[in-house]
Amino acid sequence: MSAPVAPASQETSAYERTERTTLTRHRERAHYDRELVHSILDAGYVCHLGFVRDGAPVVLPTLYGRIGERLYVHGSTGSRPLRAAGQTDVGLPVCVTVTHVDGLVLARSAFSHSLNYRSVVVHGTARPVTDEEEVKAALDALVDQVMPGRAADSRPASPKELAATAVLGIDLTEVSAKVRDAGPMDSEADLALPFWSGVVPLTTGYGAPVPADDLAPGIPVPGYLTAL
Amino acid sequence: MSAPVAPASQETSAYERTERTTLTRHRERAHYDRELVHSILDAGYVCHLGFVRDGAPVVLPTLYGRIGERLYVHGSTGSRPLRAAGQTDVGLPVCVTVTHVDGLVLARSAFSHSLNYRSVVVHGTARPVTDEEEVKAALDALVDQVMPGRAADSRPASPKELAATAVLGIDLTEVSAKVRDAGPMDSEADLALPFWSGVVPLTTGYGAPVPADDLAPGIPVPGYLTAL
Repeated sequence: MSAPVAPASQETSAYERTERTTLTRHRERAHYDRELVHSILDAGYVCHLGFVRDGAPVVLPTLYGRIGERLYVHGSTGSRPLRAAGQTDVGLPVCVTVTHVDGLVLARSAFSHSLNYRSVVVHGTARPVTDEEEVKAALDALVDQVMPGRAADSRPASPKELAATAVLGIDLTEVSAKVRDAGPMDSEADLALPFWSGVVPLTTGYGAPVPADDLAPGIPVPGYLTAL
Repeated sequence: MSAPVAPASQETSAYERTERTTLTRHRERAHYDRELVHSILDAGYVCHLGFVRDGAPVVLPTLYGRIGERLYVHGSTGSRPLRAAGQTDVGLPVCVTVTHVDGLVLARSAFSHSLNYRSVVVHGTARPVTDEEEVKAALDALVDQVMPGRAADSRPASPKELAATAVLGIDLTEVSAKVRDAGPMDSEADLALPFWSGVVPLTTGYGAPVPADDLAPGIPVPGYLTAL
């Protein structure tokens, strides 16, 4: 399954390619460069976490954070995947996927329609993080992934909250990115068809912050929000 | 696993709840209403498709379309999940998850940070669609899910393209939605903390359409794009 096809180490600039991170289609879109993978991961904060439960696949959206070559997800100590990861010595096999859609690619032919996107797929094993300092750093990373600067501008978890929270770590070893960033690719024969063709860029932005109903008076909107 | 806990049928307004569509956490966020589920599915076009390969989970982003109580995904006849779904009589067990993030929920406590979101999780079986009329309708649905009106304003698939494309159908039977749409939920003791608290709404929009480099002169931007 996962036999390496190229030698690599943690220190190289690329993840080693394995059979399951080798694309069968559109191989030109595959990338293994660490910096590119990190940039795609750092541009998001919601991943789709896949695991196997009773032989069937389960995919759940959840927050993540990255510190170096490790991803973190978290949840209640009572939640299913977090219980499952802690119940075995070998951890929980997972697939973590992060996707950003950048544009709609409208070709003349329905067949050639596509999206411009950046995605990362991580195959790995989720293991409970037990070191308290690492748990705290992971939780800070999760908050700062959503809003950089926020972890330092909120109350850190109490011992009781820490006890109720499970953090799982997933090492970034078997990883690939897939990127499409181009215009429509119609065949020569379709170029004369009378259909408009091009890319519709997608934009994501932030609306004006909405204060909590019970926000105490006199607390200003913090700089990391006004700067958005 | 999936024993129904409440009677329901295709004609009722709600999906029947099963053990695996019953949330273990935040049960107040769970919904089984068909109209709500359809509205969340129809608001997107990229799903995260999970399946099991050699015992390990795989999660891939892919386009989808919905017609009634069936979802469709497509791909090359040579791609892994599409081959896997066609190789068995029982189809391929899948989990299809669609997620929209609507806002960042910044609480006073790091622990109470959250997102406002709408998600749908479909547990089911992907089966190859073999009826040609259904294949064509599914491909139209996939294109129109990305851009309503586009299927009729592009060249339909040729027989050769149809032969190279596999379409999988997944019946909507075991389905749940999860929705959070509220402000921060800090505990009473945290309300006096000096941290700003509230929701940062997220917005998604469309940039100006970028014509293909080889677009023939005189083809106007279609109305479904100028109306965005």
